[in-house]
Amino acid sequence: MNAENCSLAEKIVSSSYVQQGAQARRARENLVRQLFEQKKCPEIGWDDMSIELLLQELAVMDSNNFPGNCGVGEREARIASRLVANRHYNIGHGIGRSGDITAIQPKAAGSSLLNKLTNSMVLDIIKTAGVQSAASAFVVPMATGMSLVLCMLTLKQQRPDARYVLWPRIDQKSCFKSMVTAGFKPIVIENKLEGDELRTDISAIELKVQELGAKNILCVMTTTSCFAPRVPDRIEEVAQLCAKLEVPHLINNAYGVQSSKCMHLIQQGSRIGRIDAFVQSTDKNFMVPVGGSVIAGFDKKFIEEIGKAYPGRASGTPSMDLFITLLSLGVKGYQQLLKERKEMYKYLSAELTKCAEAHGETLLHIPHNPISMAMSLRTIPSELATQLGSMLFTRFVSGTRVVATGEVKTVQGYTFHGFGSHTDNYPCTYLTAAGSVGMTKNDVDLFVKRLHKVLERCKKTGAAETLVEDTIET
Amino acid sequence: MNAENCSLAEKIVSSSYVQQGAQARRARENLVRQLFEQKKCPEIGWDDMSIELLLQELAVMDSNNFPGNCGVGEREARIASRLVANRHYNIGHGIGRSGDITAIQPKAAGSSLLNKLTNSMVLDIIKTAGVQSAASAFVVPMATGMSLVLCMLTLKQQRPDARYVLWPRIDQKSCFKSMVTAGFKPIVIENKLEGDELRTDISAIELKVQELGAKNILCVMTTTSCFAPRVPDRIEEVAQLCAKLEVPHLINNAYGVQSSKCMHLIQQGSRIGRIDAFVQSTDKNFMVPVGGSVIAGFDKKFIEEIGKAYPGRASGTPSMDLFITLLSLGVKGYQQLLKERKEMYKYLSAELTKCAEAHGETLLHIPHNPISMAMSLRTIPSELATQLGSMLFTRFVSGTRVVATGEVKTVQGYTFHGFGSHTDNYPCTYLTAAGSVGMTKNDVDLFVKRLHKVLERCKKTGAAETLVEDTIET
Amino acid sequence: MNAENCSLAEKIVSSSYVQQGAQARRARENLVRQLFEQKKCPEIGWDDMSIELLLQELAVMDSNNFPGNCGVGEREARIASRLVANRHYNIGHGIGRSGDITAIQPKAAGSSLLNKLTNSMVLDIIKTAGVQSAASAFVVPMATGMSLVLCMLTLKQQRPDARYVLWPRIDQKSCFKSMVTAGFKPIVIENKLEGDELRTDISAIELKVQELGAKNILCVMTTTSCFAPRVPDRIEEVAQLCAKLEVPHLINNAYGVQSSKCMHLIQQGSRIGRIDAFVQSTDKNFMVPVGGSVIAGFDKKFIEEIGKAYPGRASGTPSMDLFITLLSLGVKGYQQLLKERKEMYKYLSAELTKCAEAHGETLLHIPHNPISMAMSLRTIPSELATQLGSMLFTRFVSGTRVVATGEVKTVQGYTFHGFGSHTDNYPCTYLTAAGSVGMTKNDVDLFVKRLHKVLERCKKTGAAETLVEDTIET
Amino acid sequence: MNAENCSLAEKIVSSSYVQQGAQARRARENLVRQLFEQKKCPEIGWDDMSIELLLQELAVMDSNNFPGNCGVGEREARIASRLVANRHYNIGHGIGRSGDITAIQPKAAGSSLLNKLTNSMVLDIIKTAGVQSAASAFVVPMATGMSLVLCMLTLKQQRPDARYVLWPRIDQKSCFKSMVTAGFKPIVIENKLEGDELRTDISAIELKVQELGAKNILCVMTTTSCFAPRVPDRIEEVAQLCAKLEVPHLINNAYGVQSSKCMHLIQQGSRIGRIDAFVQSTDKNFMVPVGGSVIAGFDKKFIEEIGKAYPGRASGTPSMDLFITLLSLGVKGYQQLLKERKEMYKYLSAELTKCAEAHGETLLHIPHNPISMAMSLRTIPSELATQLGSMLFTRFVSGTRVVATGEVKTVQGYTFHGFGSHTDNYPCTYLTAAGSVGMTKNDVDLFVKRLHKVLERCKKTGAAETLVEDTIET
Repeated sequence: MNAENCSLAEKIVSSSYVQQGAQARRARENLVRQLFEQKKCPEIGWDDMSIELLLQELAVMDSNNFPGNCGVGEREARIASRLVANRHYNIGHGIGRSGDITAIQPKAAGSSLLNKLTNSMVLDIIKTAGVQSAASAFVVPMATGMSLVLCMLTLKQQRPDARYVLWPRIDQKSCFKSMVTAGFKPIVIENKLEGDELRTDISAIELKVQELGAKNILCVMTTTSCFAPRVPDRIEEVAQLCAKLEVPHLINNAYGVQSSKCMHLIQQGSRIGRIDAFVQSTDKNFMVPVGGSVIAGFDKKFIEEIGKAYPGRASGTPSMDLFITLLSLGVKGYQQLLKERKEMYKYLSAELTKCAEAHGETLLHIPHNPISMAMSLRTIPSELATQLGSMLFTRFVSGTRVVATGEVKTVQGYTFHGFGSHTDNYPCTYLTAAGSVGMTKNDVDLFVKRLHKVLERCKKTGAAETLVEDTIET
Repeated sequence: MNAENCSLAEKIVSSSYVQQGAQARRARENLVRQLFEQKKCPEIGWDDMSIELLLQELAVMDSNNFPGNCGVGEREARIASRLVANRHYNIGHGIGRSGDITAIQPKAAGSSLLNKLTNSMVLDIIKTAGVQSAASAFVVPMATGMSLVLCMLTLKQQRPDARYVLWPRIDQKSCFKSMVTAGFKPIVIENKLEGDELRTDISAIELKVQELGAKNILCVMTTTSCFAPRVPDRIEEVAQLCAKLEVPHLINNAYGVQSSKCMHLIQQGSRIGRIDAFVQSTDKNFMVPVGGSVIAGFDKKFIEEIGKAYPGRASGTPSMDLFITLLSLGVKGYQQLLKERKEMYKYLSAELTKCAEAHGETLLHIPHNPISMAMSLRTIPSELATQLGSMLFTRFVSGTRVVATGEVKTVQGYTFHGFGSHTDNYPCTYLTAAGSVGMTKNDVDLFVKRLHKVLERCKKTGAAETLVEDTIET
Repeated sequence: MNAENCSLAEKIVSSSYVQQGAQARRARENLVRQLFEQKKCPEIGWDDMSIELLLQELAVMDSNNFPGNCGVGEREARIASRLVANRHYNIGHGIGRSGDITAIQPKAAGSSLLNKLTNSMVLDIIKTAGVQSAASAFVVPMATGMSLVLCMLTLKQQRPDARYVLWPRIDQKSCFKSMVTAGFKPIVIENKLEGDELRTDISAIELKVQELGAKNILCVMTTTSCFAPRVPDRIEEVAQLCAKLEVPHLINNAYGVQSSKCMHLIQQGSRIGRIDAFVQSTDKNFMVPVGGSVIAGFDKKFIEEIGKAYPGRASGTPSMDLFITLLSLGVKGYQQLLKERKEMYKYLSAELTKCAEAHGETLLHIPHNPISMAMSLRTIPSELATQLGSMLFTRFVSGTRVVATGEVKTVQGYTFHGFGSHTDNYPCTYLTAAGSVGMTKNDVDLFVKRLHKVLERCKKTGAAETLVEDTIET
Repeated sequence: MNAENCSLAEKIVSSSYVQQGAQARRARENLVRQLFEQKKCPEIGWDDMSIELLLQELAVMDSNNFPGNCGVGEREARIASRLVANRHYNIGHGIGRSGDITAIQPKAAGSSLLNKLTNSMVLDIIKTAGVQSAASAFVVPMATGMSLVLCMLTLKQQRPDARYVLWPRIDQKSCFKSMVTAGFKPIVIENKLEGDELRTDISAIELKVQELGAKNILCVMTTTSCFAPRVPDRIEEVAQLCAKLEVPHLINNAYGVQSSKCMHLIQQGSRIGRIDAFVQSTDKNFMVPVGGSVIAGFDKKFIEEIGKAYPGRASGTPSMDLFITLLSLGVKGYQQLLKERKEMYKYLSAELTKCAEAHGETLLHIPHNPISMAMSLRTIPSELATQLGSMLFTRFVSGTRVVATGEVKTVQGYTFHGFGSHTDNYPCTYLTAAGSVGMTKNDVDLFVKRLHKVLERCKKTGAAETLVEDTIET
C-alpha cells in the first residue's frame, strides 16, 4: 500500500493502527530492498507471505498483466486456464529472448527480474557451497545431460575440428548420451580399481590426448557425484592436464553442490588447472521438482556464450522454483540442510555397516565418495540379488540399485561390460544407497529395517517375488 | 471415496444423500475413464474441480507422496518449499528417464500417466487441427528453437557427413541460431518478392542441393507461421523436392497450429512429399506460459528417436500446463478459440485497412499469411517510424514491430541486409500486427485507436519520444 | 514495490521496462485509492489479481503477520494449519471487538479496513438495488434468522415490557423460530387468499395491536421474499400502521435484494411509514457460501445499537467473501446479474406454463411474487405428488418444493395446519420453483425437461420411487 | 481412482507401477475409513495432501458441484467469485437446516459429513483434554459471548419466569453483554481477595439465590479462563450449590480447553454437581481464525435443544477450519501443543519474575490461574503505567494489559469500579501476560527484553510516548 493509500486508510480506521501496519509492511519491503541491492541469497530465509508478495509484485510488472494492455503480437503470454495461471503466479513470459536465454525481456520486467535475481542467488550459493571463484552461473530449464549438450555445442563453435570427447567412464545413460547427441564420439577412459574404489586413470587420459591430438578433442568430461563404488574423478589432476594440453574441461557435477568435497574438488581444479564449465541439477541439489540445471564457470564470457547458444525463450519454472526455494531457505537454511545431509550420510553408513555384518556382508570401503555407498551382496545368489531392488521397491524403499557383475548393455551403439558398475568386471555384486540432501533419520531407519527383512527372506526361502520388473533407475 | 467409505458415510448422514453424492462422483470418474480409454482430448472441456481431482489422484501415485516411503537414492523428488510443492500439485519427478524423455518412470506412475496422456492428447489435437496423418507427437520442455536443435542432432546420427542446412530466409534469431548451435552451416535461400509477399524460391533450393550434394545436407528447414510480408513457405513443393532428392525436411511450425492454412500445408506436404518432423510452440498455440514445444511427425519411429536423443529427465511443467489446458478447453473449446481467432484476424485486417487509408498508407496485400499482416509506413520519415514501436509500447500496445528498410545485422557471424524484413531490400518500411489465438475485439479496438493517435502525433510534431529503446522482439 | 525498490530494480533490468511495470502497478493502486476514498462498490469489477493483492496488503497490516511481533495475550490469531491460514489469506482476527461487532481492532488494522469497507460497500449496493434511503448496514456472520433474534433482543432493551411479535404467517421454520428463541410469543396473522395469492391481512394486524396493547408488542415482523403462492407482505401499509401505532417494524428480506420489487417495497415503506431494520441473507443475494446476513436500516443509531449488542468478536469470513465478491462483480456486474435473473424468472415462468398446460395443470397466477412461482398439481394423486420432490432430486433437480394440502406440523410447540402453504387450507397441491440470482437458461431447460418426464411417469405408472425421503428444505 | 480406472491406467503405464500407486492410495483411503468408523480425532495427524483429498471428496458430494445439476430453489450455493469458491473448497451450503444447526442437509451430503465429523472430533478432543464425561458438543459459528446468549435463550424456554443471571464478576465486556443482550439482569457477585488472588465468593452466591428465589434465576454463569489476578471460579462448589438449589449452571470456558486445570474443574463439577453447558472459543483453544465456539455439555438432550434454538443455516467456516486443524494435528499433535504451552507458561513466569525483581516489582502470587499472570507496577507513576501497553504495542508486543486502580467504566448501563481488575479496588496497578497455546520461547524472550527496555525508559525519562491510544483489548 503506497503512502497515499495509507493516508486514506487512516481515515477509515485509527491512524495509529494503520501506521503500525505500515511499519510492518516496511519491514517486508526492506527484505526486497536488500535482495535487490545485494542480489544474493538472503542469510535468513523469508516467510512464505513475503515470497508470495514479491512474486505478485513481479507479476504485476509483466505486460500480460497490465490493466488496459492490448496485445497484437504472436506471443502475448495469454493463459487460457486459470489453474495454469495460478500455478505460475500469472507469470507467463518465460525467461530470455531469442538472442540469449539470460537476456531481459522488454515485455516482462517482472519475469526478467526474477530470472536475473535467481541466477545471481544461485551463483552466490555455489560460492558459499565451496566454489568461491565461480564467476558466472545461470539456470537453464533442461536436464543436466541436455545442458552438457549445450556446453559441448558451444565449445564446438570454438573448436570446429573437434570430434572426440574423453570420458572417464561413469555408467549413467544420460551422461553418455549427451556426448552422442551433441554429435561427438565418446572415448571411454576405463577406471582403475584401487581397493574397493574405482578412480580416474589420469595417465590413460594423457595418452589418449597424445594419440588423438588435442585439437581433435572437444573436451574431457569428468564427473564428481556418482554411484559407489566409483568415486569423484581426480578433478585437480585432470584440470592440470587440460591446462597443460589445452583441452577444454567440462564437469558433470549433477548432485555435487550438496557435498563440500565435490565442490572443493572443483574449486581446487579451477585454481590449479582448467575447468571450462561445471553443470549441476537443480532438483538433486536444491529439492525442487525435476526440470532444471545450473551451468556455471570461471570465465564469465564463456558462460555467457553458452547462454547465447540456446535458441529461443524458455520455461521460467525451474528459475521460479529455485527463486522461491532459495528465498525460503536462506543461506542458513541451506547450510543447515547440508549439515544434516552429512550427518545422515554418516548415520546411514553406520547402520548399513551393522546390517551388512549381520548378514555376512561388508560395506565396501569407498572413502572418496561423499554421498553414495555400496554394500556387498556376496552371500546371495546373483539371480536373487538382482530382484532385491524390486523387492525393496514394493516395500516402499525407493532409490536403491543392485548391480550384478557381468551385465552387458549397449547404449547408443556402444557396448559396455559390467554396465552399472563403471568397470568391466567389478569383484562383487552390490547394492547402493545414497545419503542425499533432504534424507531423514526416518528414511534411514525404515530402509535398514526393510533391507534386513528382505535379506532374511532371501536367505530363508531362497526365492524372491518379481512384482516390479525394473526399479533400477540410472 | 471408495465403496467401503461410502457405506460408512451412510451411517453418519442419510444413506440416500450419500448415494446421490456418490452418483455425482461417478460422473466425474467416468470422465477419467473416457480419458484413459480413448487417450484423446475430451470433446467437451472439464470443469476445474474434475481436473484438480485427477491431478491429485496422479500425485498420490508418485513415490514421493507414498505414505511411509523411504528414499535412499540421489533423486527422490523431495520438495523443500511448500509453495513450490503446491504449484506442482506435489508432482516432482518430471518426465522421462535418462534413456528416453517419453519413457515411463518406475518411481512415478502418476507423472508417467500425465506425460503419456498429454502426448496422446496433443497428437489428437494436431490431427483435429488439420494434420490428420500425424503419427506421433511429444511435448518437450524446450523452446521451439532448441527442439529444432534436438531434431537436427538426431538427424545427424543418420547423416554423419551432413554439414549444411538449407534455410529459406526468415528473419527470426532463434530459428537461425538453432542451426548454428546444432553445429551446422546455414545456407540462406533468399525469398522472392511476389506482389507485396515474400515467398519461397523453390528452384534456388533445388540448385543448392545439386551444388552442395544431397548427402552433405542435413535437411531443408522451412517455416510456416511468420511475420508478414513473408508468408508460409511453399511446403508442398519443398516436400516434393526433398522426397525426390532424398534430403530430410524439418518444419518450424512455431505458431502454426492455430491456423488451418499452416496445418493444411503440412498435411498436404506429408501426403505428396517428405516431412521428417514439424515443431510447434506450446505457449503460442495453446495459451500456456512459455516453456515447451511439441515435436511431431509422420514416422513414429523417427519421432521416438528424437525422444531418445534427449539425455536425462526433464521438466514436467509444460506437459502439466498442456494437460490442464487441453482438459479444460476440450476439442470444442479449442476449436471455438480457433474460430474466434480467424474472425479477429479478419476484423483486425479490416480495421487496420481503415486506419491505413486514413493516414495515406495501405495494408500490404499478403493473402498467404493467415496470421500476421503489415501496414506500410511510407509517409512517415524512417527515423520517426522506427520509434513507433516504442511509442505504442509505452501506450500499452505490445507485439507490434516496425521494420525499416536498410537495417544490417550480424547474427552468429552471418550478416543480414534488411534484417527483420526477410529480404535484403523490401520496398517500404512497415508495421506488423498479428491476429493470434486469444486476441479479443477489445485488443483490436484499443490497438487501432492508439495507433491512430500515434500516427497523428508523428505527423503533427514531426517528432517522437524515445521512452523505450527496443520493443521489437523476434 | 515502493519507489526505492523500483529504482534498485532499474539497475537490474532496463529502466524503461521497470518504469512501464511501475506504471501498470499504479493503475492497480489507483483502484485501491478510489475504493478507500469513495468506500463504495466499484462501478467496474476488479480482476482477481487486484483483489488478491489488496487482501495480501491488508493481511500484512494485522499483528499476527508482523515480522518480529511477540504475542503474550490469550488471543493472538495464531493459525496452526497452513491450509487454514491460506484459505483466510493469513487474516485471523475476525471482525469487531468485545464491545461492538463493527468496531475497529487495534491488533488488526487490515481486518478492520476489510470489515469497514465491506459494510460500506454493502450499504452502497443496497441503495443501488432500490433502498436509496438506507442509512446504515453491516454484515454479521449469522443466519438471517439469528440476526432477526439479535434485532429483537436489541429492541427488547428499548421495550422491556414487550412480550409479543406480530407475524403475518410465512411457513418457514427459522423465521418462526427466531421469535421463540428470542423469547417472545409469536402472534400469527393469517394470510388472506386473493385469487391464487396469499396476502397480508392489514386489518387483522391493527386489531391485534389494539387487543394486546402496543407497548406489549415488540414489533411486527413482515416478510418480503417468500415461496409462492404467498407474496411479499404489504410493507407500505404495515409500515404506516406501525408508525401510527408506535410499534417497531422488522423486515425479513431474506433473498429480496435480488428483486427490485422487494427493495422498492422497503424503500416506500420507509418513506411513508416505519421500518426499524431489514435483514437479508448474504448467500441468497450475493452468491457467496452460506454464513452471513446484512442488517440494515434507516436510523444509523439504532443499527449501531444492534452491532453493539453482539457480544464478542466474530467470524470475518462472510465479510471477506462479500468483500471479494463485490469487488469482483462491481456495480455493473451485480446489476447485470439482477437483469439476467429477471429474464430467467420470465423464461422459467413461460416454460413452466407450457409444461403445466401439457399436463392439464396451471401455473398459479401470483403476479406479486417476483421470484417464486407455483404450478398446480391437481391431476396427480396427493400421495404421488408428495414424492415428486424426491423424484426430481434424484434426477439432479434441486430446490423444488411440493406442498400438499392438509399437512399439520408442530414447530416449537405451535401447531400449523397446511404447513408449507402459509395458510390452513390452500385450494390445491402445488410445486414451487424460483427464478433466483445466478440461475441459467440451462437450469431452466433441464428442470422443465426433467419435470416433464417425471410427470409423465407419475401418470403412466401411477407409482413413484422413494429414493430420497425428504428434499423439501425450508 | 477407482478399480476400473486403475486397470485402464495399467494399459498406459506399467501395471506394477500403477499397482504400487494404487496401494499408496489405499493407505490414504484407510485414514478416511478409520475417521468414518471411529468419528474421533486421529491419533497421528494427517498430511495436508490427505486432508485436501478428503475435502475435495466431500465437495463432490454437495449438490452445487453435481455435474448436470439444475437448481431451481432460492438457495443453491452458487458462488460468483472463483476466489471465494476456492477458499471454501467449493463447499457452499453451510451447516445445519432451518430446524437445527446440527442437522444434515439433503442437498449437501459432503457438508453434512464435515459438520458431523467435526462435532464428533471436537467432543473427542474435549474428553481427551480432561472432561471425560462430556456427552455432546457442537461447533457454532458465533463468538463465545453470542453462544452464551443462545444457551441462555434456550434455558429461558424451560424457565419462562427467570429474570436474573448470577455472575461472579469478571471484567470482560462480551461476557457481561451476553447476559444483557439475552434480556436478563446480571447480578454481580463480587470476588474475594485471597492473597494476591481474586476468587469466587460462594456464600454470596447462595445468599443471592435465596434472596431472589431460585425460579427467578436463569442460571449462574461462572468463568474458568480469565486474566490474572482473577482465577478460575470455584466450579466444584458452584456446581454443588446449583445442584442443591436447582439453578442451572453455565460455564464460560473461553480459552480453558488448553489448560488441564480448567478442564479438570469442569469434569469434577459435573461429577459432584450441576453444569448445564460449557462454552469455549475455537480460535483461542485450537489456533484457528476467530469465528466459532464449541457448546458442550453432559446432557445430550439439552445440548441438542441449544442446537435447535439457532434459527437458520450457518457458516460452515469455523467447522471446516476446525476439521482441517484437528485432522492436521491429531490427538498427539494437540497434546504436544498443550505440553509446550505448559512449559511456556512456566518459562514466562520465571522470566517475568526475574524482570520484575530487576525493577523492584513482583510477579503477583496467583497459583490458581494456569494461563494468565500479573506483575505489579508499584514503582511506576500510574499516569505512566497506563501508557506501558501502548509503548509495548508500538514495539510489536501484543496482548499485554496494564490495569490501573481506580478506573470506573459503565458497560450497558452498569457501573464498574476498578474495571479491568475484577474488583472495586485492587491493591496495585499491574500488567498481565498470558502463556497461551502456540506461544514460543521466542515470544517470551522478545517480550521480556522489550518490557525491560520500556520499564527502564519509564524510569529514566519519567515520561512515555503516546503513539497508540488504546491497546487494551478485552
